[in-house]
Amino acid sequence: MAGEQVSPAGVVEALRARGQTLAVAESLTGGLLAATIVDVPGASKVFRGGFVVYATDLKHKLAGVDASLLALRGPVDAAVAAQLAEGARARCEATWGLATTGVAGPDSQDGTAVGTVFVALSGPASAVEQLSLTGDRAAIRNSAVTAALALLAHHLA
Amino acid sequence: MAGEQVSPAGVVEALRARGQTLAVAESLTGGLLAATIVDVPGASKVFRGGFVVYATDLKHKLAGVDASLLALRGPVDAAVAAQLAEGARARCEATWGLATTGVAGPDSQDGTAVGTVFVALSGPASAVEQLSLTGDRAAIRNSAVTAALALLAHHLA
Repeated sequence: MAGEQVSPAGVVEALRARGQTLAVAESLTGGLLAATIVDVPGASKVFRGGFVVYATDLKHKLAGVDASLLALRGPVDAAVAAQLAEGARARCEATWGLATTGVAGPDSQDGTAVGTVFVALSGPASAVEQLSLTGDRAAIRNSAVTAALALLAHHLA
Repeated sequence: MAGEQVSPAGVVEALRARGQTLAVAESLTGGLLAATIVDVPGASKVFRGGFVVYATDLKHKLAGVDASLLALRGPVDAAVAAQLAEGARARCEATWGLATTGVAGPDSQDGTAVGTVFVALSGPASAVEQLSLTGDRAAIRNSAVTAALALLAHHLA
């Protein structure tokens, strides 16, 4: 799905046509997912906002991820990604929550390889996808944004 | 100050040298300020995270801006910007909070002209700056990010 073509404008239009809204919780993408959506004129009709949870403790404090889960599994984990998406959806009162967590590099993180990324969706449908992305820090973050939007687009199609 | 040259890497390095941290609350920039900071390798040493408060009610619910102030003045206001910065700082437990609110266009918002932007800083020093930016949606958002970083850089200098 990461290689699927996805247009941010298409996602905004699909949400608008359904009368649905979106919120995000971003770790490695650090605001880039939100910024990519907001770049579409008319995004305010469907985009609520969200959390940038770069520091691990903020994943708990802002987005409500279980502190025990974070302690046990670390921040780059499928269940953490799922809880980030659900936290964004619930706390921002949106139809859908979309989340990213992973290692953008340049260094690996607690034994997790650079390029390991999870994207997650919560709402009328829920999904988590694990990716092994390549390239530099910017390329990995851009690919994670594309993968997150593709995950949502797939469930809106 | 909006025209001042400012490097995101320089801001990250100045914070690191002081042992200080940063959080953000973004309205019109919608994650672009956070993404610009996270783009700097080593940003995790100083950047905590923050809020994307695109919908007006999230400025209250996530960042703690007074609901009565928002009702009275609307989201594009100096006092709202100051409370966004303080909410980011306090709720993300950072040394500094940096915030943006304004009208990116293409349409004016409740009588506020396109390009009207407030950037605010909260922490060891506090400041709010009003800007009248020109250009298209992307140019206004990019200029707002630059102005916010310049405001912080000025107080770190």
